[in-house]
Formats: sequence, C-alpha cells, structure tokens
Amino acid sequence: MNQMAIIGGDLRIVKLAEMLAKDKIKIKTYGLEKAENLQRIEQIQQCQSIEETVQNVNMVIGPIPLSKDGIQINTPFSIQNITLQELFSKLQERTFLAGSIKKEVYDLATSEKVKIIDILEREELVVLNTIATAEGAIQIAMEETIKTLHGSNVLLLGFGRVGKTVAHMLQAIGANVYCEARKEEDFAWMKIYGYKPIKLTELKEKLGYFDIIINTIPTLILKKEELSYIKKDCLLIDLASKPGGIDIEEAKKQGIKAIWALALPGKVAPLTSAEYIKETIYHILNEK
Amino acid sequence: MNQMAIIGGDLRIVKLAEMLAKDKIKIKTYGLEKAENLQRIEQIQQCQSIEETVQNVNMVIGPIPLSKDGIQINTPFSIQNITLQELFSKLQERTFLAGSIKKEVYDLATSEKVKIIDILEREELVVLNTIATAEGAIQIAMEETIKTLHGSNVLLLGFGRVGKTVAHMLQAIGANVYCEARKEEDFAWMKIYGYKPIKLTELKEKLGYFDIIINTIPTLILKKEELSYIKKDCLLIDLASKPGGIDIEEAKKQGIKAIWALALPGKVAPLTSAEYIKETIYHILNEK
Amino acid sequence: MNQMAIIGGDLRIVKLAEMLAKDKIKIKTYGLEKAENLQRIEQIQQCQSIEETVQNVNMVIGPIPLSKDGIQINTPFSIQNITLQELFSKLQERTFLAGSIKKEVYDLATSEKVKIIDILEREELVVLNTIATAEGAIQIAMEETIKTLHGSNVLLLGFGRVGKTVAHMLQAIGANVYCEARKEEDFAWMKIYGYKPIKLTELKEKLGYFDIIINTIPTLILKKEELSYIKKDCLLIDLASKPGGIDIEEAKKQGIKAIWALALPGKVAPLTSAEYIKETIYHILNEK
Amino acid sequence: MNQMAIIGGDLRIVKLAEMLAKDKIKIKTYGLEKAENLQRIEQIQQCQSIEETVQNVNMVIGPIPLSKDGIQINTPFSIQNITLQELFSKLQERTFLAGSIKKEVYDLATSEKVKIIDILEREELVVLNTIATAEGAIQIAMEETIKTLHGSNVLLLGFGRVGKTVAHMLQAIGANVYCEARKEEDFAWMKIYGYKPIKLTELKEKLGYFDIIINTIPTLILKKEELSYIKKDCLLIDLASKPGGIDIEEAKKQGIKAIWALALPGKVAPLTSAEYIKETIYHILNEK
Repeated sequence: MNQMAIIGGDLRIVKLAEMLAKDKIKIKTYGLEKAENLQRIEQIQQCQSIEETVQNVNMVIGPIPLSKDGIQINTPFSIQNITLQELFSKLQERTFLAGSIKKEVYDLATSEKVKIIDILEREELVVLNTIATAEGAIQIAMEETIKTLHGSNVLLLGFGRVGKTVAHMLQAIGANVYCEARKEEDFAWMKIYGYKPIKLTELKEKLGYFDIIINTIPTLILKKEELSYIKKDCLLIDLASKPGGIDIEEAKKQGIKAIWALALPGKVAPLTSAEYIKETIYHILNEK
Repeated sequence: MNQMAIIGGDLRIVKLAEMLAKDKIKIKTYGLEKAENLQRIEQIQQCQSIEETVQNVNMVIGPIPLSKDGIQINTPFSIQNITLQELFSKLQERTFLAGSIKKEVYDLATSEKVKIIDILEREELVVLNTIATAEGAIQIAMEETIKTLHGSNVLLLGFGRVGKTVAHMLQAIGANVYCEARKEEDFAWMKIYGYKPIKLTELKEKLGYFDIIINTIPTLILKKEELSYIKKDCLLIDLASKPGGIDIEEAKKQGIKAIWALALPGKVAPLTSAEYIKETIYHILNEK
Repeated sequence: MNQMAIIGGDLRIVKLAEMLAKDKIKIKTYGLEKAENLQRIEQIQQCQSIEETVQNVNMVIGPIPLSKDGIQINTPFSIQNITLQELFSKLQERTFLAGSIKKEVYDLATSEKVKIIDILEREELVVLNTIATAEGAIQIAMEETIKTLHGSNVLLLGFGRVGKTVAHMLQAIGANVYCEARKEEDFAWMKIYGYKPIKLTELKEKLGYFDIIINTIPTLILKKEELSYIKKDCLLIDLASKPGGIDIEEAKKQGIKAIWALALPGKVAPLTSAEYIKETIYHILNEK
Repeated sequence: MNQMAIIGGDLRIVKLAEMLAKDKIKIKTYGLEKAENLQRIEQIQQCQSIEETVQNVNMVIGPIPLSKDGIQINTPFSIQNITLQELFSKLQERTFLAGSIKKEVYDLATSEKVKIIDILEREELVVLNTIATAEGAIQIAMEETIKTLHGSNVLLLGFGRVGKTVAHMLQAIGANVYCEARKEEDFAWMKIYGYKPIKLTELKEKLGYFDIIINTIPTLILKKEELSYIKKDCLLIDLASKPGGIDIEEAKKQGIKAIWALALPGKVAPLTSAEYIKETIYHILNEK
C-alpha cells in the first residue's frame, strides 16, 4: 500500500516527492530525472520506463496541471516527451491523480478500472490554494505600485473563494477593501467582515475611485468602456482563469498597467502548495 | 405601493414600524396598541380591525416568529388574541411576510393569490442575524465566567453560518478558538482564518481542555459520556434550535453550567435586528 | 524562599493563594478565613495572628487595593478588622506587596528595611489589566444597548493603555472605532491600526454622531455643554479613575444613560486577574 | 506664508512638490531639474540658483536623507553638485527642514536664526514610516521564499515601533508571529495582540524553529554562533540601521540567505512616504 508512482510535474511535484518520502512512502519516479536532489533520497527510486514505474504501486501521480497542449504531459524536470496517449496506454488499472484534467483525457483510459482523479477539483485544495493566490496578488500589488497597500482603495471583483481570502488579507494589511458581488448573502458576509459593498449597478460610477482593482471572475467585466472610467495610475490584476475578466490589451492601450496573474500557487509558494497537495492526497486515500 | 400593514409582533416589529415610517412609508397597524410611541408618529395609523388594516396595502407584515403555539399569532404589544385562522381568513390577496412559518400555516391561505414569505428563510437575513447571535453568545460568556475571554480556550461545535461569525469575533477578542467540523473544506477555511481544527474523531479526548464550549449544531452531540470529559468549571452555551446539541439537564446533574440561548437577535439587539429585517424587506420588494 | 504570607484581600487574592499553592509555594494566610476552599489545600496554613503569619516568609502580600478608607485594610473574606497601623507595626522587615498604596502608608513602615511594593504600579500588570477592563466595557456596552456593537459608532476618549486595548477589541468585533487624542504620534498609531481620528478641536461638533462613548481620561471632559451635543440614546461609559471624565449626574439629568465602571478586572475576571498578579510577583522575585 | 523652497531630494521630494502645489502652495525648486513633470505645474517655479530659490520663502525643504557622504546633499534628480557648505552659506535665516541631519551639519548654520528641523526625528513620521517598512519586509519575504507567509514561523527581533507594525501585518496575513523582547511590559502587549513571546535567554534554543527572522534592533545580535542554530532555508531580513543586527557576511558563509533592507519607505512606497512627509510638515507649521 505504501508505494506510489510520480510521472512528470513541476517544482511542486518534486517537493511533493520529497515530502512523501519523508513520510516513509516508497516513491518510484519517471520524467523527473533533472531534479537531482531526489536522487539522493533513499526512499525514491528513479525508473527507466513508465511500465517499470507503475508496477506494484497503488497510485500514479501526474503533473499539476497535467498538460498544456493536450498532447504531451508537463515534464519541466525531464528531457523526455511523454504523450497523454502513451501514459494512459501503460497505466494499467491504477488510480491516476493529476490536476486540470480535460474531459477528452478521461476517454483515453483503456480500462474502466483506471480511476482518474483531478485533485484541483477537490474543494479543500481549491480553498487552500487561495492562500498562495492571495499572497501572490499582494506581492504583485506591492511590487507594481508606489503607494503602501495600507490606506489604498482596493476593489475586488467577485466574492468567491479567492475573493474572500484576498479580501481578508488585504484588510488585515490595512487596505480599504471594497467588494463587488451580486448576491445579497454575499453583501451580508461582507458586512460581517467589514468590507465595503459595491453593487454591480453602481460599478461604473465608482471605478474611478480605486488605486488597485483585482478581478476574480472568469467573465469579461472590465471592457473598453469600463476601463475608460479607471484612473491611469490604477493597477489592474486579473486572477481569473481564461477568458479572464479584464481586457488586458485594451487596458494597456488606455495607459493602465494590467497584469494577468495565473497559476500563482505554483509560482509564489511551490513548497506550501506541495504540502497542501500532499494533505489532500492523504484525505483521498483515507476516504477509500 | 408605499403602504404596508403590520399586525402583531415584538419590539423588533415596533422598531421596524418606526424605521419604515421614517422612510416615508405609510403604515397601518393592528395588535400593537401598547407600543405607545408609535401613536405619536404621523405616518402610522392604528386600525381597529384586521379588515381595515389590510385594505389598500401591498404587504402585510406579521410577527417574527409568527406563532408560539401554532394557534395564535405573537402579540406581546397587544391585549388582543388573534388566531392564525382569523388572520388568514381576512388577508385577502395580500403578500404576507412573517418569520418561522410552519408548514401547516401555508394551508390556511384562502386564495392561491396570497403569497406567503418566511423572512427567516432569506439567506441574507440568516447571515446578518449571526452577528447578534455571536454578540449574545459573547455577552453570556463574559457574564458567566470569571476569566477573560482573551486567553480562554473556546471550542465551537459546528462551522456553519453562526459558527463562522462566532469564531471570527471570539478570535478578534483574543480567545484561542478551536472549531469542530466534519468536512475537509471547513478545515481549509479554518486554516485560512487561523482557527484550530478539531476532528470529530478526536473530540472526546480533547473535551477536557476547554474553558467554554459553544454548540451550533441542532443534533444532540454532548451527551452523558461526552459531558463526563468536560471540566467542571467549563461553561456550555447552546445556540442551536431544538432539539439543541447539549443535554442541559445532564450537564447540570454533572455540575457543569449550561445555558441554552435561543432567539438571541431579538433579545440582545432588537434595534439592529429590525434594521436588518427592513433591509431584507426592501430586497424582497426590489426583486418583485 | 518558598514561603509567602497573604493577609486580607478579595476573590483575586483567594485565587492567587490557590495558584501559588499549586506552584508548590507554602502559603500562610490571615484575614481570609471565610474562603473555605483554601482550608482544604495542604500547602496553605491558616494562621491566628499577623505575627504568626509573617514569620519565616519572604514576602507579605496584602489586599489589592490595600484600603478603601485609609484606616483599615480590605478584608471581604474575613470578619476581622485590621488597621494599616496594626499591620505595619507587625510587618518586621518583610517585603510588603499590595495595590493602590497611598503615599501616607509608606510612612507607617517602622523600619527602613520594610520594602513596600505597589504592584499596580508595575507597567506589565497595568497593561495586562487593560484586557479585563476592555472586556468589562464591552460587556456593559452589550448589556446596556439594543444595537449590536458591530456596526455601532463608538468614540474612545483617550488613547493610552486602556484606550488602545478597548479600541483593538471593539474594532475586532466590528464597531466603527473613533479615537480622540492629542498627540500626533497617537494619530499615527491610529492610522496603522485603522481607527478613525477625532481631534480635540472637532470633538464638540462630532459628539452627536456616536452610539457609545467610552472615556479613559481622568479629567472632566464631558460636561454640561458637551453632553448637550450627545444623542439621548447614546450610552456613556466612564473607565477613568477619580475624578472621572464624564459628569454622570449631569448626563442623567439630560436623559443620557451613563455608567461609571471602576475596578473592572477584579469584577469581571478575578481568575485571570489573579493569574496576572501571580506572574507579576514572579517577575518581581526574579529581579531581586 | 504660502511659499516654500525645495532643494534637491529623491522621488519622494518630487512627489511632495506636486502635492504641496496641489494644496495651492507656491513652490520654488532647485536641484530637481530632471523631474520633468514638475515643469508643467503652474504653482512650481524652477530657479537658477540657491539664492533665488530661498528668497521670500518661509521654509526650505532639503533632501531626505540630507546627504550620503557628509559633503554633498542628495540630488538624484539633478546634474548639480551642491555641497552642504554652499547650501548653508546661502540659507539666510530660513527654517530648514530635511532628514537624517548629522550633528556636524547643525554647526554649518551661519546664523542662530536658521532653524534646522530633522523631520525624521518627528515621532509621528517615524511611526507612519513603519507602515512602508513593514510592507517592504513582507514583499521581500514573499519574493525570497517558496512558502506562503501564512503558516510560516516568523521571529521578530525587537518590539519597538517597526517591530509592532511588522508583527501586526504579519499576523494579519496568517503567519505565526514570535517576538523577542526584553521588557516585561513588551511581553504584556504581545499577549494582548496575540504574538508569541521569546525571551532573550531562550533565543538560542529556539532559533532553529523559524522560517523567517526579521531583525529591527541596531545591535549585532545574530552572530556566528547564533547563526549556526538557524535552518539553512531560513530567510533573514535585517531592517535595522547601521551597524545592523545580523552578521550578513557570516550568514552567507553559512549558506543562509540574508538581506539587509534599508530605507524601505522611499523605495517601496515613495508616494505614500511623500504624503506622510507633507502631513508632518503641516503639523510643524501648525505648531509654530
């Protein structure tokens, strides 16, 4: 039971391998040969083929996210090119865990006994990842402005999971936090936590007030007209996945600094991210 | 459109009548004749019958909660006894809004055109009411202990809406806040906000550690055995509606102070509660 | 070295005796015979005279505060009347520790070798006592108003030690906290912590805005004229020692609820207060 | 009264000039000719000599800090070299305000009527500058680690003004904040705010526990031996002015990342810093 395979992946996966090994789990790796520090860990065995790697393991851990182009899996720590097709053809009947798995990929499983788990759909991991996302947004805001966040007027578009954590941290630092939302219950929670509410209907007239606007909604909300109401020295940060909520090109055209910051957890805090992935894997194992 | 009827109700309803009148809404009242201050307000007309009261209004506001015994409506500010039966027979085709409306009551409507709204099922009001509930719990904790809340070890059973707000305020005051929950995503949110997690499986062994335990779960959780693990000078506060989560009698038998604190918003902050009811009514009117 | 005498004192002193005994210190008591629980503690010996009590001890702990009338020491847990004169005539050359010791009392020492320590002049204890004072003020505010503290407009007069802690806790609960102060550096700290500043020069014109006003300055500041600007449903809490900062009689005359809340730590949190006294005694012993 | 001279200075001084002009104060500048945007502001007149600049003004504002080498004043926005000697010989009897003015400089004043004010000795500005210093430290910590600050174990050496603000912000973000201090009253304040205390006597044995150590004490405290107890992946940030509190060279030798971050307000938040300088100048003018 205590043997896992890890195939491909970025720095978070390397750190994850280290942590799992520390927890006395035997790890077989493939597609991570450039992570030299792993080679010095006794619990970790570097394999020469996918077949060898998946043998006698309970779970195969793939990259997070799994693939960028839909053809090959992510292997930044390897010179190997591994296609999704090849990987799945050799998976046998293992549980396969990775991140951001597209629908088409599920069809690649050759047996109904392959269980595919997208760890980025686990609610607890999504919530925990908002910590690093919020810190990443704060870091960008600090780097890209010449004011302190303390005392700055910051608008958050969207009051979902990321919005809640960003609001919590920004207020703690001393920013004046305004949140845009649609549901009355969201405004009720804002009142409890002390954030100032902005209704969608009043958004346009208020846009000119802010020093920083952070979007978390994956729907285009700041378009040409909306951008025209924003101060030229306002900083725009878009945390939403594609298609994003800010027309970045248009913003630049209008002379407004705009940054689309994606996948922050892996970038700003790979170690903590690996830890949360590990904890989530343990939850999954416990539920079985 | 700007005429409303108010029939029966407690101090919150009296305050609500004042606030609505201040907002230039004409109010007709019945079953509130002992609220003398209302008689001095020009916008408010005291009626002599239900029929007169409901004439030409858009909405009839009843007590919150509507009835204690299922037969008569709550009229603490009146010498009148008004039965649900009578009220509904005279409602005509008005929208009727009250709180904690039992299922049977909906059958009393004589016309399908009577629209019945239970305002205590509006999510935003439920959330806003957690503020007064949390403050009420804090007030009780301060009154009933000889320690400061700051530095006390407090366990919250349940991490729903009430639990979240109580945790937020207690931590702010400086208590060491522990939360019991079941879902991994709840533990993720606790981590973000800095509360210490207690798993249900480890509850028993940890119970002896706390100075105050506050329950928010409407399922009996602290029974004879669990209570036997708790310190004798621990304070138990049950905020859950019937059947509650603490065996109060058994606690007293074991020499542990236990308080079942129900309906706190109306008791500790009727003015603020009235304000939130008013806001919620406006939301309802806007949605029509 | 591990023997102490305790003479007189209130519930905090009783709790202190218990705690010291728990720490394996031998305690001899006098003037506490009505604290029955002490009699069951092996480490504690009840003595029949002051002479017997002070024999072979390193430190004599007296009441906190020492005396109310300047003649007798405080002995609420005793039927004895003990005068300051008598106590000091029998103290021998012990270190004597008590609270709120008036200047005249120091002259009563019969020997220059009696070292008198007023523990309420220890800065760390003064600071720690602000916690219970702040909680006491919050408890009063919750009990005496029909609004939630969350969302209330609260003015603090004075930004010293008590003011800082009250501000910290009130804001945490969600009150809108305004602080009056005189020094620019105080306004700088308010900005950091997010409190809204009120200058003394603008005080009068702003007074009508507040739901609760808490004074911490021991100088009459809210007099007849100032009170006339305050809302009739505003709650006034005076935390300042004599002469206080609010003309309580005049406030009542004007129909404003006003409470002079003194010596809160001993009232609202005697157990925590005893703990902080104990810690401070240990600091004193360590410094010798 | 509404005319001021500004001679030399960095981006904060440029921003200060803009802000003063916005407040309808007439500004004469020298040694800022490369700040082109100032030339477009009507209220601002660029002068050709010091003599011309100081004529008919009430106050002359110099660089903050005034000089790096003790000979020339700081003029990063100018091609001019201006010596302290020359400046003071032409100051006439003006009030001269700058930052970090060395003792020797005061002797350069040719008349007793020259009033020299070091604005960095104004307590409110020192306090306000801790905001930007704290944010700068947080930014560095975010950039230089692969963990989230949330959940990291952070030790602050020193609990003065900078220490207090850094602790406040770090805790708000969710770090586990430990503070080293010497005075018992400091530990009392830590208890109120919820920081964990570290006594100097236990420092060595605890050093190995931390992910980040931030020093604020201008005395060498982390030397060869102390550094040997620290984890290799711990980040050291020294915020103290010379001589600093961390042996940076020795830290690097031991393989520990160490950053000496000085003068953060001007670097990370020149705009906010300028605002606080302006406010402080107004306080000084009001006190006259």
